[in-house]
Parts: sequence; structure tokens; C-alpha cells
Amino acid sequence: MGRQKAFLDKIASTLQIRNKLVRQGLAECLGTLILVMFGCGAVAQNTLSDGAYGRFLSVNLAFGFAATLGILVCGQVSGGHLNPAVTFALCLLGRSKWRKFPVYFLSQTIGAFFGAGIIFGMYYDAIQTFQKKSNDLPLGIFATYPNEHLTTANGFFDQFIGTAALIVCVLAIVDPYNNPIPQGLEAFTVGFTILVIGLSMGFNSGYAVNPARDLGPRLFTSMAGWGSKVFTHKNYWFLVPIFAPFLGAIVGVIVYQLMVGWHTQGEAQERKKETEGMNVKLNDIDSSVP
Amino acid sequence: MGRQKAFLDKIASTLQIRNKLVRQGLAECLGTLILVMFGCGAVAQNTLSDGAYGRFLSVNLAFGFAATLGILVCGQVSGGHLNPAVTFALCLLGRSKWRKFPVYFLSQTIGAFFGAGIIFGMYYDAIQTFQKKSNDLPLGIFATYPNEHLTTANGFFDQFIGTAALIVCVLAIVDPYNNPIPQGLEAFTVGFTILVIGLSMGFNSGYAVNPARDLGPRLFTSMAGWGSKVFTHKNYWFLVPIFAPFLGAIVGVIVYQLMVGWHTQGEAQERKKETEGMNVKLNDIDSSVP
Amino acid sequence: MGRQKAFLDKIASTLQIRNKLVRQGLAECLGTLILVMFGCGAVAQNTLSDGAYGRFLSVNLAFGFAATLGILVCGQVSGGHLNPAVTFALCLLGRSKWRKFPVYFLSQTIGAFFGAGIIFGMYYDAIQTFQKKSNDLPLGIFATYPNEHLTTANGFFDQFIGTAALIVCVLAIVDPYNNPIPQGLEAFTVGFTILVIGLSMGFNSGYAVNPARDLGPRLFTSMAGWGSKVFTHKNYWFLVPIFAPFLGAIVGVIVYQLMVGWHTQGEAQERKKETEGMNVKLNDIDSSVP
Amino acid sequence: MGRQKAFLDKIASTLQIRNKLVRQGLAECLGTLILVMFGCGAVAQNTLSDGAYGRFLSVNLAFGFAATLGILVCGQVSGGHLNPAVTFALCLLGRSKWRKFPVYFLSQTIGAFFGAGIIFGMYYDAIQTFQKKSNDLPLGIFATYPNEHLTTANGFFDQFIGTAALIVCVLAIVDPYNNPIPQGLEAFTVGFTILVIGLSMGFNSGYAVNPARDLGPRLFTSMAGWGSKVFTHKNYWFLVPIFAPFLGAIVGVIVYQLMVGWHTQGEAQERKKETEGMNVKLNDIDSSVP
Repeated sequence: MGRQKAFLDKIASTLQIRNKLVRQGLAECLGTLILVMFGCGAVAQNTLSDGAYGRFLSVNLAFGFAATLGILVCGQVSGGHLNPAVTFALCLLGRSKWRKFPVYFLSQTIGAFFGAGIIFGMYYDAIQTFQKKSNDLPLGIFATYPNEHLTTANGFFDQFIGTAALIVCVLAIVDPYNNPIPQGLEAFTVGFTILVIGLSMGFNSGYAVNPARDLGPRLFTSMAGWGSKVFTHKNYWFLVPIFAPFLGAIVGVIVYQLMVGWHTQGEAQERKKETEGMNVKLNDIDSSVP
Repeated sequence: MGRQKAFLDKIASTLQIRNKLVRQGLAECLGTLILVMFGCGAVAQNTLSDGAYGRFLSVNLAFGFAATLGILVCGQVSGGHLNPAVTFALCLLGRSKWRKFPVYFLSQTIGAFFGAGIIFGMYYDAIQTFQKKSNDLPLGIFATYPNEHLTTANGFFDQFIGTAALIVCVLAIVDPYNNPIPQGLEAFTVGFTILVIGLSMGFNSGYAVNPARDLGPRLFTSMAGWGSKVFTHKNYWFLVPIFAPFLGAIVGVIVYQLMVGWHTQGEAQERKKETEGMNVKLNDIDSSVP
Repeated sequence: MGRQKAFLDKIASTLQIRNKLVRQGLAECLGTLILVMFGCGAVAQNTLSDGAYGRFLSVNLAFGFAATLGILVCGQVSGGHLNPAVTFALCLLGRSKWRKFPVYFLSQTIGAFFGAGIIFGMYYDAIQTFQKKSNDLPLGIFATYPNEHLTTANGFFDQFIGTAALIVCVLAIVDPYNNPIPQGLEAFTVGFTILVIGLSMGFNSGYAVNPARDLGPRLFTSMAGWGSKVFTHKNYWFLVPIFAPFLGAIVGVIVYQLMVGWHTQGEAQERKKETEGMNVKLNDIDSSVP
Repeated sequence: MGRQKAFLDKIASTLQIRNKLVRQGLAECLGTLILVMFGCGAVAQNTLSDGAYGRFLSVNLAFGFAATLGILVCGQVSGGHLNPAVTFALCLLGRSKWRKFPVYFLSQTIGAFFGAGIIFGMYYDAIQTFQKKSNDLPLGIFATYPNEHLTTANGFFDQFIGTAALIVCVLAIVDPYNNPIPQGLEAFTVGFTILVIGLSMGFNSGYAVNPARDLGPRLFTSMAGWGSKVFTHKNYWFLVPIFAPFLGAIVGVIVYQLMVGWHTQGEAQERKKETEGMNVKLNDIDSSVP
């Protein structure tokens, strides 16, 4: 046992990366990989088995709890955003530094790319069988595409509202002045948020609400032989789940802060000032009290 | 970063509302908006996709966890009632002030109104497509209507019992003398309560058990072009989910207090008196003990 | 507000019951009422809507979380057994007094009786409509009956194993020497236990695993006009879910104690003795150490 | 009561096993029995009722929460691995001793064997009825077999990736340098991990990702009259869920440690050294400070 321990410690110290931003990027990459691997895996299972091994509810549960697991894996290191729109919202509020934004966005997209790749490999035989039967590419497994009834304007509104709803809930969960849940349960609560968004906002275009979750797998499918059609399909739909979420993040931040956040924050700061004021007075009277 | 912080602090102090009741109203409004947006969104997804993107179980899960999220968003500010019948029950027990009741009722109804509006906008294309196909308005997405088998008397009993069951569970969860769960998990437990009510009491008329959740969306549909029929339909059914819940709240309060609440409360108060009595005696013996 | 408070306090002290066993009986009665009301309500919703408002999974979820809610409502007062087999197992282990057993059994059965009654009232119209259509009584909503493939011997084994599994899990959850979960989450964990039993042991005869949950509703249906056939049906099946669970409880206690319980208990007691021994020695050396 | 207590204490001290490894083996055996009993029970219920009493989602939920319950029952004694691949991963990292590995593997396989046996007994009548109807053995209830579309190479990759994903999540949950969840909730989080794996990786071959969970029930079915075909079926498929998971465990360990584990571990150790360094300096200045 002693030799194994020494060997492991040596590996650890050799491979340890000291640059914090690189470590955070690696962690976000692994977290988003887990989110997309499990989430798109559930879509694949549902699509390829034609509903026998899963329904849309299974997909919703998988994306929700996959988010929980992704956050648990990387949260202590990187905060567990898994979503550039979340990083963007936290930057807007000054809770995350702007220079993290491009690193996180890139890491999350790479993680999502590899998550899709793993599912492609895992279901390779099933995808071949499916394509032979239906003469159709099961595109919807990886990236999102709009349903037939959807116009682009309505689709933009869909992604915009979905992300705004996500951001309002996430901000409430992580707001330092409004901490409604026991520490350590944030990941579960975000998972339930994603679950609920899927249950109620998934019919139009599959609730991407996350530029990285959509772009990474789309790049993968493009390189895996499905070519440029994954970008041009449905009037360049792929632009919608990239840009609408950022607009949604801005509005989500404003709505939450206007209706809850700024008031609790202000109150907390006033209370703090009062306490400090009282301490000053107390110290005037008797400065020996600790 | 420094400039952004200063800018954000300035916005916060400019927009901060100091009147507590106004802030509570805003918070209840946002919380109920979240409840209705996600809940009715799930009904819309189920109805408009004809079951392909959700079944009744999805609706139950969505309403349950939407309640959890709504409470998490506003609970620290307003208590997270999201339901005038809950506010009413807490007023009856003297745990909430009566002057809050009209403010909360109004805020909750406004929140529910806008929640329905967001879902109407999000599924605008899908609703148009549905109406063309079936020549029928998907009324049941927003407000509740009785199933065909239901008489008004049975429907009244349905809403009355549903709300009474809700209130018994909510009172147990928030009873200060009977605190069965770790702090911070109340929102989850209330969510499970709503889920269970939906699983077992949803067949008759869609388990409104909440006057604001039903009235707000109904007003919206009326104004969105469906006119007065949303009120006159099925013998003015809309009155049932407004009035029955309050009666249910009264009976829920009485049942819980008679069978559990008053006894634990009495016991706690007697224990407190005894402790005080003992302290008095101890102080008689040695008054220097802190 | 002052007058309301005084009035409420007066009611509380007037109606407060001081006899602990009576209060525990009342609490168990309310808890079991909640379990059966929500659980059988879900069966009713599933059966009467012919699967449109629920599937067997909905029933499983409802019984599971209904148990959670029932325990939360009464647990602080009575322990939240909701099941005579659980009371019996705890009596066997000396963790509950034997004189509680008949009181709990009776209270639980009465609670289950009224829970069934509420669901009968709530779905009165739907039951009438169902009977007209199918010329069949929806007996399975309230009490349990064996599936066609089941012999009585296999049915007895089914109830016996189901209860043994329940008891093993419940004992692990409440074992004072093996406390695996944070305090306050016992009710949730028991709920998940019931959910899992329903998911995997529900096909043979509907997983009663609880004499009170089965007998109370059966008595109700007998009195509600379905007569003695609820007892004589399928060779007096009603005796199985009354007697098999107690045998299962005995075996569950033995299995858990043999494989986990007695060893952790013994270890804990030895550790305690050692600590005491050490304290004695320490006190010999220096008796002024606190 | 006194006599019962004395009697129970006597039994406890008579039957108490003092050898820690034997007790851990017993606990792992019971835990895995619970996992397989509930998990395979759900497959049986789904298969034998032809989907009427459960869908694949029910199976996913059952395996997930069965893992939670199994871990809760034995976790305090043995760590609650329930899976030789998990034991193997923890041995690789030096968190579990290598001599535990064969004992745990054996105990887990025996537990899985008896878990399958209980379900065979419980659904004996239903299995007979099913075989008469379909002239087919419901083999898939107990051990896993590949779906028709699956080649052995893809099947090996499937089991390999599934286990690697499981190990990454489990390592994050139990990593002492990255403790993302409140103590006592590990069992629930592992349960959600198994649930998500089932939702997204179950279509190819039924997500064994556990050599004991697959081998134990396979041995049982072989002895219960289904003979050697359970081993020879589909080109000796049974070897895949035995060997692929261990390879997956190795890769899971490397991925987690490379991307998250070694960096947090290194950081924690450096922080510790710094603190020690500072203490030394402080002690130099003033050695009387505690």
C-alpha cells in the first residue's frame, strides 16, 4: 500500500496544473461533457428505440439530473456553469470576471463536442440500423432543430424566454443575499430547473437554452459526415440557440434583480452598515470589549 | 471590474424599494409567474403535441417542481405562498397579517396572468396550428375546466378537498412547533405535495386548488380573444376554483390543528413555562448564574 | 391581531389533548389518511381515466410521496409508522412499546378507512360513469386484489417478501447505530422505499405490504354498497395482506439485524464502554479535568 | 419490556461478528441483494405485464433508487460499493485496500444471486404464465443480453463507457478534496447517477455496468433450469459485462483525476503545508498561543 500511495502522489504532483483558469476550463469541459453525454444519450435512446426505451419525459429527467451531475463534478473548481449564458449572466452581475467568459465558452463547447462524440460511438450500430430503416438522419439526437409548426421569430422568442427563466431561477439559487437552500444542494436545484424547463418548454425546438450544448454537438455532427446541412437546415436555425440565450440572460438578470435581487441586497447592506454603526458606538463606550 | 461594481451598486440603490409590502407583492408576483409559466407550459406542451412531448405525469411533475422553484425565488422575501388559499390559512392562524391578504391575492393573480401570457407567446405558432387542425380552442391549457363526468357539486367537493389536503401538508411543513424537515427544504416538500395532489386529484377538473393560478390565466385568455366564454363555460365553473379553495383552507386548518397542531403547540408552551419556572427558581438560589 | 391571537390560544388550550397515546393515535390516523387518500386517489385517477390521467408509474410515485407527506404530518408526534407491520417490527426490537401496537393498528385502519371515503366522495361521479360503461365495479381502487396469474401461495410469498424488504430498508433508515442520512430526511427516504417497492413488486397484487392500508379501504367499500364480496373475492384473499406482512416484518427484522444491525450495535456499545473506561482512568490521573 | 431488552441484548452479543472484513462482506451482500432484487424486480414487472405495470422509465427509477437504498443499508459498514468496478476504482486510488477486492466481489455476486432468486420466487406464477403464452424464456429479466442491432465490439464500448461515466461521477461524489454535497446524501446522488445512466445508456444492452449485478443473476438463471445457454447466448456475451467495466473503471479514474481530482488534491495539500508553515512561524514568535 505504501508504494502505491507514493506512486500516486508522484503522479498527482507531476500532472497537477497550477494555473487556476486552465483548471477551471478543464473542469467546465468535463462537466459539460457529462451534461451532453447523458442528455443527448437519452435523446438517442428515445429516438433510436422509437420510444420503447424512453419517452420525452426520460429525456427531460436525463438532461435535468445530468446537469446536477455535471455541476457536482466540476462545481468546486469552476462554479459549474456548464452554459455560456450562465457565465454571461454572472459576469453581468460582477460575480464572475469577464476574462473567464471566453475560456468558459470555449471549454464548454469542447466538452459538449466530446460528449456528443461519445454518444455517437456508443450508439454507432443503432444509428446505422436506424438510418437503413428510415432513410433519414437522426439529426435531432445531437443538436436542436425547430419543430414544423415553428417560425424563426417564435423560435427566437422560445429560446429567449427559456434562458431568461433559467437565469431567474439560477440567480435565486446562487444569490448570496437570498440563500434559500442548504449549501451543497444548489446542483440538485439547478437540475430540477432544467427538468421543469424541459417539461414545459421543450415542444418548440428542444430547449437548448445553452449555446455550448447546441454548438458543440452540431460541430461534431458536421464533422461526423453530416456536413454543412446541420448549419443551413431550417434557414440557418443554428444561429438562434447561440444568440437568443444571451439576450435571455440579460433580461433574466434584469427581471430577477428588479423584482427580488436589488431589494434583498440593499436591505442586507443597510443592515450591515447599521451593525457596523452600532459596533462603532459600542466601541466608543467600552473599547476593551472584543 | 471596479467601475462595473460601482455602476451596479448605483443601480441597486436607485431601484431599491424600501416598502416591505410592495417588495413582498413583487416577489409573490414573480413566484406565481414562475409557477404558472412552467405549469401551464407543461399543459400546453402535452396538449399541443397530443401527448408526444409529455403526458399527464409530466404536467404533474412540472406543476410540483415549478412550485418549488417559485417558492425558492420569492420565499425569503414574501414567504412564498403563491396561492391566496395558503395566505388565507396562515392569516387564519395569525401567522400572517390580514392586511397582507389582498396585496398577496392581487400580486399572485397578476403573476399568474403574466405567466399565462408568456406561455401564450411562446406557443403562439403551435396554438395556431392546433386550432386549424381541430377547430377547437385549447382552453384547458390556461385555466381549468371540469371533465365531462363531473357535476358542479362534485366539482366543488373536489376543489374543497384538494385545497384542504394541500393546507394540511403545508401547515405540517411550516408549523413552528412541528418542524419535521431541515431548514431550506420546505420548498421541495411543498413541491412534492403539489406533485402528489396532481397524481391523485387531477382527473376531475385539473387540480387548480389555487384561486390566483386559475383566475389570472382565465382573465388572460378572456383578453387574448377567447372572450366571455371562459367565464360562462360549464355553468360559470370559474367560480368554483375561486371559492372552494378558501373553504378548503378553513377545513384544512381545523383538521391539522385538531389532530396534530394544537397538541404540539400546547406541549411546547407548557415545556417553555416549566423551563422558565425552573429558571426563576434557579435564579432565586443563585442570581449570579448567567 | 391581538384579539385573534388570544382567541386562538384559548381554542388551543381548550382542545389540547394531554394524553400522549391518544395524541399519537390521532396523528397516526391523520398520517395514514393522507397516505391512503393520495395513494388510492392515484389508483382511482389511473383506473377511471383508463390511463389518460396516469399510469402505474403515477400510482407508484403517489404512494411513495404520500407516505413521505403522511410521515411529515405525524412523525414528530407518533413516529410516523402508518403501517402496523412497521409498528410491529419496532415493538419486536424494543424500540416501541407493545401497548402502542393495538392503538396504532386501530388508528391506522381508521385513517385508511376515511382516506378511502374521501376518494370515494371525490370521484363519486367518475365511479358512477365508469360503472355504467363497464358494468364492473372498480374494486381495485381501494383494496388490493390478486392478478389473474397469481395463486394464493405465491401471493402470500409476494406480500411476505414485499414487507420484509420494506422493513429491512426502514430499519436501516431509523437504526440509531447506523444513521446513514441527515436528520429530517427519513420521511423522504421511506417514500423512496415505497416507490421502489411499487416499481418492482406491484404486478402480482398491488403491493399492499400494510394491513391497515388494505383493511381500512376494504371495510369502506364493503359498507359503501359493495357488500361482503370484497372479503370473499378470490378465496378470501383479504386475509393475505393482513397476515403475510407481520410474518414479513419478523423476517425483515432478523435479516437486517443478522447482516448489519447487531454488529454495528455491538461495536457502538463496545466503543462506548472503552470510552467510559478511558474516562475513568483519566479521572484517576487528574480529576480536575472537565 | 426489561426482559425483552435483556433477551435482545443477549442475542445481539451472541450473534455479533467481530471480524471487520466478514461484516463488510455481509453488508455488501445485503446491499447488492437489495439493488438486484428491486432492480430486476422492476424489469420482471415491466416484461411480464407487457408494459402495463411499468415502462423502461420505471426500470431506470427502480435501479437508481434501489442503489440508493442498498447503499443506505450497508454504507456505514462497508462503504456501499455494490459493484466490483467501484471497489476496483477505489483500490486503484488507494482509498480501499486491495485485499478487500476479492471479498467484496464475491459478496456482491452472492448478494446479486439471491436477489435474483427472490424475484424468481416472487414472480414464479407470472413467469410460468408468460412462458406458456410466448414460448419464450424471459431471460432479460435477470442478466443482461445485447439488443439485436449491437455488435460485440460496440457492446464492449457501451459497457466500457457506461462504467467510466459511473466512476467519474462516483469519484466526484466521494472525493475527500472535492466534497460537493452535504454528508449523508451520497447514496441519493449515486442513485441519481444510476438513474441517468439508465435513461441514456440503456438501449444497447441494458446498462449492467457492474460485473456482480450481471454475473450473480446469470448464475441463478443457469441453475434455475435455463442451463448453459445463458452463458453461450450471443457469442458468450456474458464476458462483456464482466470485463469491460474494469477497463471502464481504469479510464474513469484517469479522466476524473486528470481533469479535476489531482489539481484539487494538490491544492489542498499545498494549502495544508502553508498552514503548517505559518503555524511554525507563529510558534516561533509566541509559543504560548494554543
